[in-house]
Amino acid sequence: MLEESKSAERLPREVGLLGGGVIGGGWAARFLLNGVDVRLYDPAPNAIEHVHKVLDNARRAYRRLTLVPLPPEGSLTVTESVADAVRGVDLVQESAPERLELKQQLLAAAGRAAAPKTLICSSTSGFRPSLLQAEMDHPEYLLVAHPFQPVYLLPLVELCGGERTMPEALERAAPIYRSIGMHPLVVRKEVDGFIANRLQDAISREALWLVHDDLASLQEIDDAVRYSWALRRASMGSYRMAGGGAGIRQSIAQWAFKWPWSRLTDKPDMNDAFLDRVAEQADALVKADPLDVSVEEKRDDLLVGLLQALRSQGYGPGETLARWEQGLRARTPLPAQDSGPLRTLRVIPSSWIDGNGHAAESTYLQLCSDATTTVGRYIRANGENLEGTGTYYTVETHLSHLGELRAGDRVEVFTQVLGADEKRLHLFHVIKREGSEKRAATGEQMLIHVDAESRRSAPVTGKMRERLLALAQLHAKLPRPDRVGKGIGMQ
Amino acid sequence: MLEESKSAERLPREVGLLGGGVIGGGWAARFLLNGVDVRLYDPAPNAIEHVHKVLDNARRAYRRLTLVPLPPEGSLTVTESVADAVRGVDLVQESAPERLELKQQLLAAAGRAAAPKTLICSSTSGFRPSLLQAEMDHPEYLLVAHPFQPVYLLPLVELCGGERTMPEALERAAPIYRSIGMHPLVVRKEVDGFIANRLQDAISREALWLVHDDLASLQEIDDAVRYSWALRRASMGSYRMAGGGAGIRQSIAQWAFKWPWSRLTDKPDMNDAFLDRVAEQADALVKADPLDVSVEEKRDDLLVGLLQALRSQGYGPGETLARWEQGLRARTPLPAQDSGPLRTLRVIPSSWIDGNGHAAESTYLQLCSDATTTVGRYIRANGENLEGTGTYYTVETHLSHLGELRAGDRVEVFTQVLGADEKRLHLFHVIKREGSEKRAATGEQMLIHVDAESRRSAPVTGKMRERLLALAQLHAKLPRPDRVGKGIGMQ
Repeated sequence: MLEESKSAERLPREVGLLGGGVIGGGWAARFLLNGVDVRLYDPAPNAIEHVHKVLDNARRAYRRLTLVPLPPEGSLTVTESVADAVRGVDLVQESAPERLELKQQLLAAAGRAAAPKTLICSSTSGFRPSLLQAEMDHPEYLLVAHPFQPVYLLPLVELCGGERTMPEALERAAPIYRSIGMHPLVVRKEVDGFIANRLQDAISREALWLVHDDLASLQEIDDAVRYSWALRRASMGSYRMAGGGAGIRQSIAQWAFKWPWSRLTDKPDMNDAFLDRVAEQADALVKADPLDVSVEEKRDDLLVGLLQALRSQGYGPGETLARWEQGLRARTPLPAQDSGPLRTLRVIPSSWIDGNGHAAESTYLQLCSDATTTVGRYIRANGENLEGTGTYYTVETHLSHLGELRAGDRVEVFTQVLGADEKRLHLFHVIKREGSEKRAATGEQMLIHVDAESRRSAPVTGKMRERLLALAQLHAKLPRPDRVGKGIGMQ
Repeated sequence: MLEESKSAERLPREVGLLGGGVIGGGWAARFLLNGVDVRLYDPAPNAIEHVHKVLDNARRAYRRLTLVPLPPEGSLTVTESVADAVRGVDLVQESAPERLELKQQLLAAAGRAAAPKTLICSSTSGFRPSLLQAEMDHPEYLLVAHPFQPVYLLPLVELCGGERTMPEALERAAPIYRSIGMHPLVVRKEVDGFIANRLQDAISREALWLVHDDLASLQEIDDAVRYSWALRRASMGSYRMAGGGAGIRQSIAQWAFKWPWSRLTDKPDMNDAFLDRVAEQADALVKADPLDVSVEEKRDDLLVGLLQALRSQGYGPGETLARWEQGLRARTPLPAQDSGPLRTLRVIPSSWIDGNGHAAESTYLQLCSDATTTVGRYIRANGENLEGTGTYYTVETHLSHLGELRAGDRVEVFTQVLGADEKRLHLFHVIKREGSEKRAATGEQMLIHVDAESRRSAPVTGKMRERLLALAQLHAKLPRPDRVGKGIGMQ
């Protein structure tokens, strides 16, 4: 799938943006950070300032989003007129306020100044393209390209042509949006609000009825959604779990709309022809995307990933998860330490994965780092306060990669103290998939004890020193790993 | 917040489940994996088999979900009667099919056999508790506790009491559900479908209208949702970004329901009193959960986390992200080459910073990894398509830490090819702050060329081999770094 799509990408050289508000600023950020030059027209006094704020947010987000180096940023040119913004560009993107006449004027002006056949796209959230192209001399290359906020992160862009749009325009637009990391979805027929916002509109109406009838507050509504079905709709979608045509037929027969579960109760006639159509689509959906695990397992893997991502942010369902883990920990007895290596357990998080799906190289050093923390906890004893006494810094690491790790793998790191003196601490980590005999990697490290204030090397002292030396003595009885002290070389 | 909530948890010893279908099986899994004993009644012939299947899925999901050791599983006892399932338990959970009379009978029978004051909870998706308690001798401890599928992963449980339910019943139920990792949400007034399903009902109706009017297929509907607003609703929620009361007032004035963006167009009267209430709730929502970063940054961090989680599963928006990264890699310009080492420039992002404010240990390996990518790009020449020809895997790394790096530091990595043959590539990276003479770290790496398909070591061939050997020859004239080939040791 990736191969095929690659050829269906076409990065523009320069685009013209009309409007630099929340949506226009988001477009500017997405294009610029993908290396595309941007010409921007917005007569509002603070428009440029605002665009720079959005751009800063987007830079910050992209730095976290990907480890792949971004191309050099495109250049941002502020123009004094529509004509100046669109002259010579590959694509025009209009993101003016939702006033039909204003948009019609801007689009007509853009059409007059742009080169013939330039794609002219509107970010409108709801106006039909046939309305937007009403005033244009050459409406054939006008289409709606409706994004979602924040434009630089959310992938969807709904593409919709009007009565006078040439099919070629949509075909040319899709690869452009794909090249800047978006997912173009062609809306086959014109309709107010397109697809995603029609569904949101239905939710918003029902939500305001809930508030109106004092059944729920905005907070309760948001919580009801984000702790439940939003997670499912963000991952597996809603119809995949229905079990194909037969399943959805059964579910509609059993469930759909028998009870007044909404203030908005109008529904299509559920006749046989309609149910056949729905069932057919449910089957097509399953067939279009075969899974390598059961649908329940795929659903669970996706949900687990989302819950873990939210846990790392301590937010919403992620906070619930963290709290549950805290409760579990409080109920679990401490593991006894025997004379073997210290053990650290980790799950490879999805943020550590490179483009090929396996753990990025630096993951292995992170695992060593985490295992060193376990040693630190052990020699610091029972939560004893040792603030200010000093800490260990790594000075050298020798990693050997022996196997691959993937997101979600449970990994054990076994750490042996090879030696310790006044200042130095020599460790050897063995990284394995949990339960596996095969080593995925080994890491040998030399650390040095550093005074907390001066940040210079200094002897370790007191209780910590005693516990460290006792641990080193215990571990001296373990077999010495075969890779210790080895250098790297071609022979 | 976590401290407070801990005391508000109460793990039951044993629960009685009536019904072992999709929902009942999910409850069984959640309780058992939290160490709670379960007594289960379900007269259907394959019920137990099905529960075991759900339990297997849940075990698999929990192993991925958390590193915290789970308590020993509770015991599962299958009973022959309702009475036998509920006798002596701390809580009864009914999950029978959605037929009112059936539920009423089961709940009445459970009430007669359970100990006085036992909580009797129904998983109903829509029936009002007042209806459910109609046949009960002691309806005071009947309440709705409505979960979402998969019950063992999704945290929401909607709690709702009927006319004859004592408030104490809801107060006692919440800590029990919290103790098994759920988020109880009290539905303050009885209403068909409670909160989350009323909103889903509205979406489902609108979705079927889209299908009916041939505007979109089920697949297009699911895609429109999961590539756009589901991500936002799963993380930040929908009303938080509105900017409090003033913001939501403005947004309603500007937007809400002026256009027919839904087939379901009934809406509350937007009078001043109603708008005041909505604005008040929007303010309360912001005040209830202060953030330590701007709301845009928090939103972005949450979305980035979700996108990364989906990337690791290669699914939906995660596939879009992976595809974008693939495109970025292909487009990154070649490094300019003179006779010196290859140069890679990076800025240290704040997500790489440890608790002490300096770059985490693994940062240094990430920098080496990025520098290796530069070498790869150089020898792949001008974007020449080498898909399928192979790639280099790191097999060994020797890092020496010589100084500290901080967030925002611009860093140069200079990379020298120490040697190259048919399969091996020996590199030496020097990491410096841009413009500084002092080395922050060095990294020596041995890589091996791997066939793209077999994933086994294989000779490098063709143009890539030529360019690599030429580069090695050029770099052979550079001075050899003093740390090459060194091992780690105490002396």
